[in-house]
Amino acid sequence: MDNFWNEYPVMKSDLEEVTRIMKKSIKCKEKLVENAILELINSGGKLLRPAFLIIAARFGNFKEEEIYPLAAVLEMLHMATLVHDDIIDNSELRRGTETIQAKYGKGYAVYIGDFLFTRCFKILSEHSTLKGINVDSNVMSRICMGEIEQFSSKYNKKVSVRRYLKRISSKTAELFSLSFYSGAMGSGCDDKLCKRLSNIGHDIGMAFQIIDDILDYTSDETALGKSVGNDIKQGIYTLPLIYVLEKKNQRLSDILDKNTLDERDLREINNIVRDSGGIEKARELAEKYTNRAFKLIGTLPEGENTNILLRTTEKLLVRFY
Amino acid sequence: MDNFWNEYPVMKSDLEEVTRIMKKSIKCKEKLVENAILELINSGGKLLRPAFLIIAARFGNFKEEEIYPLAAVLEMLHMATLVHDDIIDNSELRRGTETIQAKYGKGYAVYIGDFLFTRCFKILSEHSTLKGINVDSNVMSRICMGEIEQFSSKYNKKVSVRRYLKRISSKTAELFSLSFYSGAMGSGCDDKLCKRLSNIGHDIGMAFQIIDDILDYTSDETALGKSVGNDIKQGIYTLPLIYVLEKKNQRLSDILDKNTLDERDLREINNIVRDSGGIEKARELAEKYTNRAFKLIGTLPEGENTNILLRTTEKLLVRFY
Repeated sequence: MDNFWNEYPVMKSDLEEVTRIMKKSIKCKEKLVENAILELINSGGKLLRPAFLIIAARFGNFKEEEIYPLAAVLEMLHMATLVHDDIIDNSELRRGTETIQAKYGKGYAVYIGDFLFTRCFKILSEHSTLKGINVDSNVMSRICMGEIEQFSSKYNKKVSVRRYLKRISSKTAELFSLSFYSGAMGSGCDDKLCKRLSNIGHDIGMAFQIIDDILDYTSDETALGKSVGNDIKQGIYTLPLIYVLEKKNQRLSDILDKNTLDERDLREINNIVRDSGGIEKARELAEKYTNRAFKLIGTLPEGENTNILLRTTEKLLVRFY
Repeated sequence: MDNFWNEYPVMKSDLEEVTRIMKKSIKCKEKLVENAILELINSGGKLLRPAFLIIAARFGNFKEEEIYPLAAVLEMLHMATLVHDDIIDNSELRRGTETIQAKYGKGYAVYIGDFLFTRCFKILSEHSTLKGINVDSNVMSRICMGEIEQFSSKYNKKVSVRRYLKRISSKTAELFSLSFYSGAMGSGCDDKLCKRLSNIGHDIGMAFQIIDDILDYTSDETALGKSVGNDIKQGIYTLPLIYVLEKKNQRLSDILDKNTLDERDLREINNIVRDSGGIEKARELAEKYTNRAFKLIGTLPEGENTNILLRTTEKLLVRFY
């Protein structure tokens, strides 16, 4: 596990339990599949979605035997989307290790993602409710829609900020929102609190994705654990670039029209996006979502759990500004 | 719809209703996705799985508003696996029309399959039970395992008949079995009848897949609606070939060792498989499963519904021998 949770030993032990459930539920006869998923589990993600689910659940009547499986499902749904996204994006690296599609091929990656989906619904059938499954499947449909919209918008220089925000709301923020909602619902919080926690998740998710997209411009490969400039290479235009495209930057537009982009092109795009204030503006919007999340967190009942949520959100989002 | 059901106007109208539910449930904002799935729905499959589900349901207390959505789910699960399989097999044609992966690319095909999965579980959350969802997700996991086993066994000349049978049981027969089981369960049949119907589905599924695999050797492109010899080209060794490989046919083994197979090689493989009795032996096994299904159908309560099941099974499997 990532050392993100080192200062919270209770959360760390919660997440170890969640990891154990994940490992158990993906056991199967095809050892290649099991090992590929184990490698992904062990590659040290932050387990943000299950962690947020657990934090939300602690606002209600927390029963670990009911909450841990739901938390495992959230991470496994996330993993399934990662495995399939890496096929489409042709990604080589994820969390600093080779992706399943790169290591085992796209064929296995398709089935491994599918297998993860089926295991999620198996767990849900044993630990959730029909209503819970309804919410989960709706969110999953919207995630597909977000991914498809991103795929359809490849190399489209006319994508608006509004469309981008809708896309990341579907493909990222909805799952964060679902994490909070599932935890709150699963521990019997009232509707109002469920809704509020779910909104916090949405705002955190929006900020998180914008920051992730900015990092594709600003980070270096070692720190990020995946290739930099990957989005642009794949024709995926994200917020920093979209802001600059809106200003009708001719040079940027010309480079993007090239058939293939070499390292020099990527560096030039990077410089233009930075110099034209694209990164700065994207940061401001991420900050806006972050502040909205903080404001909502401020309305939660005071206590240790709200503090953990506050400090986690800070650690995740604020160190960036 | 295929004219397979023309002589059964009640079933035809049932299936039209099921098709309407499918079309409604795949409505979404991304019109490309919706249209791609509509084309697949309209390409005229036999809708065997929903039809068998409906036949099984008529042995119990048949309520169409409860049964039709479950029937739609079975076909949509099947469609999802087709869409993903075509990515892996690189298939160009399905039911005589271009596959989604060929027409729209592998990226869309991954997400369209995923979207279909999520819609299935949404319908199930509204019309099934937690137990039903548990059974469905377990079957889906086993289908994945069957597909993965097939993928892992590519170009493996040592695949045993036993392993092949296990594969087709997972990847095909389980879903037929589930169709019968879901229908029987959904209409309140007792456990014994559910089990018996589910066994009938399994035997029909086994015979159906063996026949499908034989057709890859014996049919012509127009009749089959997909490429002939496609399995071999993809390194997928099915029953007729496995039988001959077991006899240690050196010439066959040598051709299969080639890096690429041209039309002449495919014709020669075909001739060897036919002349060495591979097709004949495969037919015999398909017939054995068919007869087992008939025997079980013979134990069902007499009546119109059993007759339809009998004649449908005949039409599907027996005309072939």
